[in-house]
Amino acid sequence: MKKLRLALIGFGNAGQAFARILLEKEEVLRKKYDTRVVVVAITTKTRGNLVDAWGIDLDKALKNVQNSGRFDKILGFSESTTSQDIVDKVDYDVLVELTPLEFSSGKVASNHIRGALKRGKHAITANKGPVAWAYKELSALAEKNNCRFLYETTVMDGTPVFNMKRDALRLCNVTEITGILNSTTNYILCELAKGRKYNEIVAEGKKRGFIEANPATDIGGYDAAAKVAVLANVFMGADMTPLDVDRCGIEDISEDDLRKANENGNVIKLMCRIFQDENGEVKGKVAPEEVDKNHVYATIDGTSSVITVTTDLMGKLTVIEEAPETRQSGYGIFADLMAIIEDD
Amino acid sequence: MKKLRLALIGFGNAGQAFARILLEKEEVLRKKYDTRVVVVAITTKTRGNLVDAWGIDLDKALKNVQNSGRFDKILGFSESTTSQDIVDKVDYDVLVELTPLEFSSGKVASNHIRGALKRGKHAITANKGPVAWAYKELSALAEKNNCRFLYETTVMDGTPVFNMKRDALRLCNVTEITGILNSTTNYILCELAKGRKYNEIVAEGKKRGFIEANPATDIGGYDAAAKVAVLANVFMGADMTPLDVDRCGIEDISEDDLRKANENGNVIKLMCRIFQDENGEVKGKVAPEEVDKNHVYATIDGTSSVITVTTDLMGKLTVIEEAPETRQSGYGIFADLMAIIEDD
Repeated sequence: MKKLRLALIGFGNAGQAFARILLEKEEVLRKKYDTRVVVVAITTKTRGNLVDAWGIDLDKALKNVQNSGRFDKILGFSESTTSQDIVDKVDYDVLVELTPLEFSSGKVASNHIRGALKRGKHAITANKGPVAWAYKELSALAEKNNCRFLYETTVMDGTPVFNMKRDALRLCNVTEITGILNSTTNYILCELAKGRKYNEIVAEGKKRGFIEANPATDIGGYDAAAKVAVLANVFMGADMTPLDVDRCGIEDISEDDLRKANENGNVIKLMCRIFQDENGEVKGKVAPEEVDKNHVYATIDGTSSVITVTTDLMGKLTVIEEAPETRQSGYGIFADLMAIIEDD
Repeated sequence: MKKLRLALIGFGNAGQAFARILLEKEEVLRKKYDTRVVVVAITTKTRGNLVDAWGIDLDKALKNVQNSGRFDKILGFSESTTSQDIVDKVDYDVLVELTPLEFSSGKVASNHIRGALKRGKHAITANKGPVAWAYKELSALAEKNNCRFLYETTVMDGTPVFNMKRDALRLCNVTEITGILNSTTNYILCELAKGRKYNEIVAEGKKRGFIEANPATDIGGYDAAAKVAVLANVFMGADMTPLDVDRCGIEDISEDDLRKANENGNVIKLMCRIFQDENGEVKGKVAPEEVDKNHVYATIDGTSSVITVTTDLMGKLTVIEEAPETRQSGYGIFADLMAIIEDD
């Protein structure tokens, strides 16, 4: 039986959901792929770190975190190990980067991915940073060292966006992409349209856990801009960072704007657009737009999201992810892992 | 350079669109996959047949058909060769089945596919018959003889339905499927809702070429039922034929039904549903239903189609194909061919 060793950098909601799927699909991985997946390291900022070449007991690690918010101080536990140490020194086959996005540079996560790829290890990132800020370099490095660099979770969680293009749409040329890709702003806009107040919506969203303590990166369109850079780089050969994206958030949407949109038979959505300008240069844009109430995008409610990819051979394909939970983020990582397992 | 020899059984709209894509992507197939794809046989009902082990000149064949509706009587032309002769005797690597669906049994197309698979040749079908009527047998035969049996085009043309499940959603268990999968009925229902008369819509659709001379299989829900059987067999392990699908067409939709739906804030759609009943048995259903105007399905206009697949790991994923043309059918066949090329 083959053994595939993973190192997880980060163990938040997505990492825990991924661990649960690993436990759930353990048997089918053994039977169908003759593969045993073991997690040999988990590093976190506040929960401690675990390193165990024999394989960490994931069920126990999940329970620990759920009960106390931290790993138990068992053999292999360390307070002081750094993520970069794990990246550079531990024996693993696949690095899984799950740290939060630093919007301004993506550097820490890019360093993790770079470290793994330099050692000829596969790398999976759920963090948009490495793809938004360093796609060309990192994908070239992966190719040179004959390993995989995968990032399904960076846009629409586990929805097959990159995996679909790579497999089912492999020789299609992408000419245009549109989408509603940030769920926090979509939720806020939906609630505003119902006549609720901005502060009330944000306060409730924070309380219920799906709006972050500091929602500025969502509301200002920064998260959406990072996704636009990712899509432009991967699908349309751009060499773009989030700073190159023409970005406008939803902070200035007024009651008057909402009323006018409604009078026009429209709703307001934070639209992401990637297109070629008249010189053939790839451009990215994030901005609120009025959308006709009879258009499919107007039906994308709450935390759902949507992407439309236009290609030379298949015209317009639209994919909708309906009201995802953290399980869907876990699945994105798992789908990338499966691509590596099937490849081997 | 590898050579991959195709035999095309049928050369209607989808076959011609596929041939055009082959010509368009010839160079990238050579460069990226080191593969030369040649068509060694084309059989048709009314255009004549061509067999040429050196490779048929596709550009010329397309022009012939466009200009005169028939192949030129060049070397390799025959009037009398039968499709089954080609299937059983010609040297090819991939059989491409493109004949029209016989709703009542799928026998002729199934015989073609069976003949190819028995010889250890890969088989691609754009005809729903073999998957709706003989999926279990044919997929087992393909596995036994170590060859591929692929059918992307049978549901929503080239939209990645089966390819997406096979790759990006490979370990997901499908628990439910819904969709609007027949474009003729969807177009008619959209036009009826605008207040137009049934006969007028059908007459115009026939004139413009997207409603068939005898639209009974579409209007009665037979085509949709065949798609339901295909999806139930492939995704949910059913052993179902179109006759097992609980089917109701749109022929009895009255002006009164449309008026009532509108008063309820709804539209009428011909819905396809595949689900497990309380005993865990997989059931298929095709019937007109009222759909809320704010639901994404209400926005599926004209000849567009939509499918929603619910899985254990990824929740609800919805894919929309917007106003497809014959190119999209050609692409479905091409996508299956690419899966075979990448596999080799």
